[in-house]
Amino acid sequence: MSVDAHARPSRDGSESLYDPNIPTPTHAERARTLVARISTGTLCTLALEPEGYPYGSFVTVAFDSGNPIFLISGLAEHTKNLERDPRASLLVAEGGAADPLANGRVTVLGRCRRVEGESGSARDAFLAAHPSSSYYADFRDFGFWRLQMDHVRYIGGYGRMSWISQADWRAAEPDPLGASAAGIIAHMNADHADAMVLYCKAFSRATEITAASMTGVDRYGFEISAMTAKGPRPVRLAFGTPVSTPEEVRGALISMVKDARSKLG
Amino acid sequence: MSVDAHARPSRDGSESLYDPNIPTPTHAERARTLVARISTGTLCTLALEPEGYPYGSFVTVAFDSGNPIFLISGLAEHTKNLERDPRASLLVAEGGAADPLANGRVTVLGRCRRVEGESGSARDAFLAAHPSSSYYADFRDFGFWRLQMDHVRYIGGYGRMSWISQADWRAAEPDPLGASAAGIIAHMNADHADAMVLYCKAFSRATEITAASMTGVDRYGFEISAMTAKGPRPVRLAFGTPVSTPEEVRGALISMVKDARSKLG
Repeated sequence: MSVDAHARPSRDGSESLYDPNIPTPTHAERARTLVARISTGTLCTLALEPEGYPYGSFVTVAFDSGNPIFLISGLAEHTKNLERDPRASLLVAEGGAADPLANGRVTVLGRCRRVEGESGSARDAFLAAHPSSSYYADFRDFGFWRLQMDHVRYIGGYGRMSWISQADWRAAEPDPLGASAAGIIAHMNADHADAMVLYCKAFSRATEITAASMTGVDRYGFEISAMTAKGPRPVRLAFGTPVSTPEEVRGALISMVKDARSKLG
Repeated sequence: MSVDAHARPSRDGSESLYDPNIPTPTHAERARTLVARISTGTLCTLALEPEGYPYGSFVTVAFDSGNPIFLISGLAEHTKNLERDPRASLLVAEGGAADPLANGRVTVLGRCRRVEGESGSARDAFLAAHPSSSYYADFRDFGFWRLQMDHVRYIGGYGRMSWISQADWRAAEPDPLGASAAGIIAHMNADHADAMVLYCKAFSRATEITAASMTGVDRYGFEISAMTAKGPRPVRLAFGTPVSTPEEVRGALISMVKDARSKLG
């Protein structure tokens, strides 16, 4: 089940400015986007000693077809734990927000086993994400391990969370703007704050606002924090058609300025 | 068992410049210092669904007498898991180093139970570390939980790791320079790189070096990366007596410059 509290009425009872009908990435897409950008996490295994305790350890990670890949030593606690019981999970968490609980995080659960024989795509994915690991990848006590995803839990901050099915996880693609979103947001807020206000007045329920700043952008649209008389409120706006590069975002945003000006007269 | 690979012979067979007899923080002290500075981590619990899987979730945390304290909602997965089985661990990991596996991390294992009645010191510790949580601390579905530490695993980067006993963990204090160490290091490397070379030549085995930079500082002494003909090597030097404030560090370092100059003539 998916919950998006942004679409609910505001706490003060005023109508939400966030239109739930605007296209938005699915939780599976958001989760795949998050893990595509982060290459460390916490591996949770079942401890050999003290037996049966859930044991959290820091790991470097890469993803191969949606399954986490690790390069770990047979001497490490987590590896000994997995050799006894393959049940595991991996938590990958975003940093960034001033309020740490507002950041997104993803837990992938499944069975984690050593990749036998030629490690092929697992090795390629790991070394692409962690080039400096190539010097120990062939050490005798190190091996590639794959966490075969069974379940995924996604928490995108306050009030946005769900369990993601295997099928949805596998079908979802990381957002093509994942790596460039932060730069786009910084540029828009530094140089085009006036355009954000214009978009809100022309295309959203947030017509009575004094300021607006971009807080997120993805292939389907963008998120705005709009300052109303009652404080900041989230707003979402869609691109005319989905975009996949920063250049396409730029084109779409310029076109929306023109449309907004003609609409507002 | 404690392992400090820095004190071993170098990989190229040359004698280590790192003197293992220089006083150094214990692993318990290093681990307590690490957790004192970081207020988020991964809570590992045993999942209700899929049953028995180790489940990692992102949490905010504070420490009360060495035991992790959480303020969590009864609606959250980890809380439901703990209500069924209290066995848990918390991983707290440092950021910072370019190589993520060179960062320190601590796993605290034990049983995690809701704090009954007046939450007293648990509440005080948590709200001191997370003042903004006071607005939901009294929400009916939230409660304070304490992970009663049984075992601690410490990994201080490559080759520095051990299990820490309950007694050692409880007796250890966070290093008094924990919060100021980064500033001291930056200042010394920006303005006093010459003094680092002088210290090495006068007080260490690293007499044939061309440059040196501070990489760590604690109440007992400091760590240096000294550039030798064979590349950078770790060196450790002690303060004459343990220090506890940045001002005392400054005094000790100035005094060591004078001593070094008279020793080298």
